[in-house]
Amino acid sequence: MASQKQIKRIAIVGLGLIGGSLAMTLKSSGYEIIGITKKNETLEKAKKLKLIDSGSTELNSDVLKNVDVIFLSPPLSYISYYIKEVSKIVKHEVILTDVGSTKLDICKTAKSVLPENIAFIGGHPMAGTEQSGFNSAQTNLFKNCAWVLTPIDSSEKSKKALSLLQNIIKQIGAKPVISNPEKHDQAVALISHLPLLASIGLCRVVKDIKDSKLKNLALLLASSGFRDMTRIGGGNPELNSDLLASNISQLINLLPKYYSELEKMLELAKDKTDELRKVLSVVNSWRGNLYNSEGKNNSLSKESNIH
Amino acid sequence: MASQKQIKRIAIVGLGLIGGSLAMTLKSSGYEIIGITKKNETLEKAKKLKLIDSGSTELNSDVLKNVDVIFLSPPLSYISYYIKEVSKIVKHEVILTDVGSTKLDICKTAKSVLPENIAFIGGHPMAGTEQSGFNSAQTNLFKNCAWVLTPIDSSEKSKKALSLLQNIIKQIGAKPVISNPEKHDQAVALISHLPLLASIGLCRVVKDIKDSKLKNLALLLASSGFRDMTRIGGGNPELNSDLLASNISQLINLLPKYYSELEKMLELAKDKTDELRKVLSVVNSWRGNLYNSEGKNNSLSKESNIH
Repeated sequence: MASQKQIKRIAIVGLGLIGGSLAMTLKSSGYEIIGITKKNETLEKAKKLKLIDSGSTELNSDVLKNVDVIFLSPPLSYISYYIKEVSKIVKHEVILTDVGSTKLDICKTAKSVLPENIAFIGGHPMAGTEQSGFNSAQTNLFKNCAWVLTPIDSSEKSKKALSLLQNIIKQIGAKPVISNPEKHDQAVALISHLPLLASIGLCRVVKDIKDSKLKNLALLLASSGFRDMTRIGGGNPELNSDLLASNISQLINLLPKYYSELEKMLELAKDKTDELRKVLSVVNSWRGNLYNSEGKNNSLSKESNIH
Repeated sequence: MASQKQIKRIAIVGLGLIGGSLAMTLKSSGYEIIGITKKNETLEKAKKLKLIDSGSTELNSDVLKNVDVIFLSPPLSYISYYIKEVSKIVKHEVILTDVGSTKLDICKTAKSVLPENIAFIGGHPMAGTEQSGFNSAQTNLFKNCAWVLTPIDSSEKSKKALSLLQNIIKQIGAKPVISNPEKHDQAVALISHLPLLASIGLCRVVKDIKDSKLKNLALLLASSGFRDMTRIGGGNPELNSDLLASNISQLINLLPKYYSELEKMLELAKDKTDELRKVLSVVNSWRGNLYNSEGKNNSLSKESNIH
């Protein structure tokens, strides 16, 4: 495996929002970038904009020749497929990682199919925008965002790959956070996928009102609260569908806890408003400490939390 | 009752965020403003800043002498109390309105206790910020926001009061929307109180995680999605508690519909991702039409919807 100084050629499979931004950012950090995308138009554009040095619309041994690191950034549901493809194609020593939003299934696939020459570390940059696709790519997408890395074993090969990836991630301004795949999936179910499901539900309850007078009135009165609470649910349907599907078992575990919280609150609202106020004061203080005045995550800013 | 030109003196009971902003905005529109607040400090500050012409820390016949319109803007749970107080104190013809976030109970109280000389129209400006209290008051709080007005009968007195209030509301930049109290409460349950409950639940599910390693990881990974989905739930505890309590029956009605939507989505996520993607595409288009690029409500911008 290459040492830090020897990491020169990086392949990126999938040039959407994440892959495109990664190409941009790594290219400007001085790496040689090989882009792989099914779309010829995207490939040509990426070459023209000099975001990649070379590339292909097909994944084959030629295009991956001598690469030191491969980032898999296709849609989430294609990642396991590409892990299998890479395992067949690549015969030299290489670090393989991905950017998928759930990690357990992907890491299981990697563990079961990858040969000795490939060191796999799962990855998940906590970055995104309302937009998707190559045209939305931007250089500062990963700036100060958490980038989870999930090793699949504790071998020396894994440790070396992890350390090299951590350095690349720091180099592009993101903050590496190391976790095991299962804890990662539990954590993102809590702070990303349950909120997503909740948001979709809020959209659909209003969208499907039969009483047109009520619906019109509701839409007239929908203000910044409803706007914020429906933003993620109204986002990219392919991504959102993949997110829910890929973390379904965690979501099924969480739903009863969520229901129980909603019902506790309604119970208090019925005739124990003093107690409700106390409970909501605790929520208010807790939430007040999570983000700073610019909306940035406070725990992430504390360097001690970061690996 | 005064005609439009004769409306000169306006009393505002409660000088918090809404009452204070109302004082500011109405004062700069040329009205004589009488402020009533329990807090001596707020009263002195309001006088010093010339947001009110006169005022008192007590509600009595003296301070309400010759006022043409009274706005009740104390915390939601005090509004019915003040309606009763005004009904005992005021003997001259006056328009009484409020700014409470639910309307059915308030309008019922008004209907049952108010004498002939008081024309009551319920009111609800769809305005607010993260902050509360007089010190957060601002002149542009009501700019382009919907302001619901709920008449309690169809008498000539009511119609005249409604028309006069509509004009005042337009004058301060808000957009009057007329509704009956029950429809209003149904509508705000959908776009404001159910989202609030959902947001509180999301906070509490994460806040109460027992596994400290998981909790720390979740908080590290909490990004803009979790931030937006917990903003309203982490807001002012007094207001949030009042909102849930005041619209409890609508929330109890809505909860099974919400659960059913969440479960439908999870069912599709299990093994019908193609169908889920289609459903989420519809949600995506629907949500995409609700707000403009500046985050402003699109239906509210269409003048034809406004009364």
